[in-house]
Amino acid sequence: MTEPRAIPVVEVGPRDGLQNLKEYLPTDRKLALIDGLIQAGVTHMQITSFVSPKAIPQMQDAEEVARICLERYPQADLFALVPNLRGAQTAHRLGMKKVANVISLSESHNKANINRTRSQSLEELDRIRESLPELEVCVDVATAFGCPFEGRPTQQALVDFVGQVHQLGVRTFCLCDTIGVADPAQVRSALAAVKAAFPDSTVQVHIHDTRNMGIVNTLAAIECGADGVQSTLGGLGGCPFAPGASGNTATEDLVYMLHLMGYETGIDFPKLLGLAKELYTDVPGNYSGHHIHINS
Amino acid sequence: MTEPRAIPVVEVGPRDGLQNLKEYLPTDRKLALIDGLIQAGVTHMQITSFVSPKAIPQMQDAEEVARICLERYPQADLFALVPNLRGAQTAHRLGMKKVANVISLSESHNKANINRTRSQSLEELDRIRESLPELEVCVDVATAFGCPFEGRPTQQALVDFVGQVHQLGVRTFCLCDTIGVADPAQVRSALAAVKAAFPDSTVQVHIHDTRNMGIVNTLAAIECGADGVQSTLGGLGGCPFAPGASGNTATEDLVYMLHLMGYETGIDFPKLLGLAKELYTDVPGNYSGHHIHINS
Repeated sequence: MTEPRAIPVVEVGPRDGLQNLKEYLPTDRKLALIDGLIQAGVTHMQITSFVSPKAIPQMQDAEEVARICLERYPQADLFALVPNLRGAQTAHRLGMKKVANVISLSESHNKANINRTRSQSLEELDRIRESLPELEVCVDVATAFGCPFEGRPTQQALVDFVGQVHQLGVRTFCLCDTIGVADPAQVRSALAAVKAAFPDSTVQVHIHDTRNMGIVNTLAAIECGADGVQSTLGGLGGCPFAPGASGNTATEDLVYMLHLMGYETGIDFPKLLGLAKELYTDVPGNYSGHHIHINS
Repeated sequence: MTEPRAIPVVEVGPRDGLQNLKEYLPTDRKLALIDGLIQAGVTHMQITSFVSPKAIPQMQDAEEVARICLERYPQADLFALVPNLRGAQTAHRLGMKKVANVISLSESHNKANINRTRSQSLEELDRIRESLPELEVCVDVATAFGCPFEGRPTQQALVDFVGQVHQLGVRTFCLCDTIGVADPAQVRSALAAVKAAFPDSTVQVHIHDTRNMGIVNTLAAIECGADGVQSTLGGLGGCPFAPGASGNTATEDLVYMLHLMGYETGIDFPKLLGLAKELYTDVPGNYSGHHIHINS
């Protein structure tokens, strides 16, 4: 008998999911969703992002959400996305211990996404690290497996870029398949290469399900050394401007599979599934693309 | 450089897909679908089933479909599902070289599905083999990974049952996840065990996508020795009496992944995808559950 392997499932629905909703979800509904996830046993969660309310109106209540959640769930691993030093300062001021900072592997996507060159992003990251050395910064490497403008990167380009970030002192990475174009062979190879090159680092993945490869790519990552996997309840996260586009890998599908395979996630599957079904019927602004696959 | 591995993708949409449609698809539409698949490079196809038209009205034109297709596509590997000797005789009379005969691993499912005990099914299979020795009979082992009444079988029960069929001279098997409850670890282990026990046999899988495990389980089977994988265009095959229930693994998703991974299927992906999109909008009686994931 081997011990069942524990794998952290990191819920990013309250951030990556909700920010793609067409309609504003009131703060109490956001808090209820987060509470439901906590009650279902989710302990790792990206709860909001500290961005400009003009850019992403859905996140205008970020400070309130963060303050309340940090107080309510002091034992949970709660973190937020921050695009810059200012966001990181807000997170730190509210008592958050960890943030995620996104930089794209591809220069053109980084420019399109956050209007900075990669060098400028790395400089900003350096400022965050210098100003707030006690804050854990996870770098989300966007377009790690493919870019809408530049196509598929070489694996060497990925390893080199992770190396640049690593040199700034970052030891927590998340490789993101931002547009859902990865395949399992690519994911396995990339994970193994990054893990081998940076054995002192924690590497997660964040896979979009755009082409129905969410589950298979997430499993591929786990089996090649991923230290955690990100997903969203109900597969939330479809782009509201791309009808039929799916969001992230659905947390309930992932947990269902992992438990059958003998992995431990600490999550209560029936509770999680109930929550996914509620979300599917209750959330305003149909987040088309995904549907609830599992009935019971 | 290793040679790209060829993997037969066996299209079963014209049978398993269409038989679940609420509305009757006229013969010329069925023929157009099969022709589109052939033009897209599909060479292995289950085109119909020789069953009672009372039981499955959708298949009332089985003889006509088979006769026309066998004449039009003499090079293709076309076969039909047959529940009994009578169906096998019809297939043989029309010049078909191969049939699939379904028997459930679980006694209770076999009774519910074809109103026979497994012993009776094995006797009927023996009669088919005795009467038509030149006909290749593939046995579809239904509920190979789980049964709605009996739950998950032991792997030994599966291997033993395949052995009973093997003793009747059958050398072509298809392990079916009839209700979509398998997980990748189970599929890998089962495939490896059956392939090891019967090295003279060809073993395919047929995975339903009920719980969004279609792609991951199908890949698991391929990587543990499956000689071919079954799927349906557009994920056709959802049960019309179970809203939201998905059908089979979608052929276009599978081919998309396999090509990215370097497998050869002989299928023209853009043509296949175009056909899936047409099917999705054209087929009468919404076959809910699946949607087209890939846009281009």
